[in-house]
Amino acid sequence: MSGNDTLARLGEVIESRKGADPDSSYVARLFHKGTDAILKKIGEEATETVMAAKDGDRSKIVYEVADLWFHSLVALAAFDLKPADVLAELERREGLSGLEEFALRKVKQREHQGD
Amino acid sequence: MSGNDTLARLGEVIESRKGADPDSSYVARLFHKGTDAILKKIGEEATETVMAAKDGDRSKIVYEVADLWFHSLVALAAFDLKPADVLAELERREGLSGLEEFALRKVKQREHQGD
Amino acid sequence: MSGNDTLARLGEVIESRKGADPDSSYVARLFHKGTDAILKKIGEEATETVMAAKDGDRSKIVYEVADLWFHSLVALAAFDLKPADVLAELERREGLSGLEEFALRKVKQREHQGD
Amino acid sequence: MSGNDTLARLGEVIESRKGADPDSSYVARLFHKGTDAILKKIGEEATETVMAAKDGDRSKIVYEVADLWFHSLVALAAFDLKPADVLAELERREGLSGLEEFALRKVKQREHQGD
Repeated sequence: MSGNDTLARLGEVIESRKGADPDSSYVARLFHKGTDAILKKIGEEATETVMAAKDGDRSKIVYEVADLWFHSLVALAAFDLKPADVLAELERREGLSGLEEFALRKVKQREHQGD
Repeated sequence: MSGNDTLARLGEVIESRKGADPDSSYVARLFHKGTDAILKKIGEEATETVMAAKDGDRSKIVYEVADLWFHSLVALAAFDLKPADVLAELERREGLSGLEEFALRKVKQREHQGD
Repeated sequence: MSGNDTLARLGEVIESRKGADPDSSYVARLFHKGTDAILKKIGEEATETVMAAKDGDRSKIVYEVADLWFHSLVALAAFDLKPADVLAELERREGLSGLEEFALRKVKQREHQGD
Repeated sequence: MSGNDTLARLGEVIESRKGADPDSSYVARLFHKGTDAILKKIGEEATETVMAAKDGDRSKIVYEVADLWFHSLVALAAFDLKPADVLAELERREGLSGLEEFALRKVKQREHQGD
């Protein structure tokens, strides 16, 4: 697949599940349960990612990070946000990476001030 | 530019920080601290994502999900995995989404069995 | 000295740090930073507890659970709650433990209904 | 109840569930599922505590912290540890609290060094 956007497409599929019959799909059911149910999944999948990494189980790590990103996408959709919003933020930071040494210096400065 | 490209490119930048002088960049420093420091960040950023969402603060949500994905990328790199591995897993699932009702039926079956 | 006393006493020490000079103690500083800083610590310490347990490092587990409980006490204080409130809730459940089989049956019933 | 130890007693009840028929109680079932299932609950309950606090819902906070402590006790038991081990660690720290300013100075020193 080229020039594609796996995340954008997934975001659209997820978006289309909003308001659908809770029994029609996993995501429709999650939206129906509400924001807290979605956020709870983010906490769960983060914990499972950490556990998979502690096990050093590479295919489990891939699986759990996929779960974590997937439920992040559901959370974004719950607030009418898109994967592109997060990718733009990541690109913004990458554009700043030439300044990364400066950023690091700022972190250290902040730590110095004990805040 | 597609989202896949953004993540792939970020993955490469992160990969290039491995083994670099810990004082040269934030990511080099994180790799130097070790896997537990990276995983701890995933727990932290997941919590901050949840808090931003509870605040209903949309730009903070974008910022925190970016942080969460970014540190996921660092964790992947720590295990010689790439963003493409996670995107492939997500595509695999999307390909299965025609079968989502079946998947949901399986979830319910499992719940029925009390496991 | 009973466990209840330890937590109650700790709760009082923590309570006394409210509004104190942020430079005077770690807890005063945490209160000064605000609720989000306290809640973030709960997410962090939970992750560290999970990592210590995955390492099977028993003294680290004790240390991290102590950190987790300690920051729970700070969170309780932030909402004018006391350790005794949580202990009362735990005692209430223990009193119900003769009914645990019934509770379990209810869990299964709920799973059966797929909710 | 005086001179008691709610946590110690709860720890004993939990300990007694080890190896019991998974269908006999919630805790027996959790032990049967294994350590990862127990640790996952710690991540979950930490997230739910954070959400309850963000809601400012005081009775939910008490309920979720009780859940968090309860599952911490199950994790301790899984590693043959007791609530008393954690309480001893907390008392050790409290004994050090006269030195808290010193401890804080050490934290700042460490931050100053940027580690």
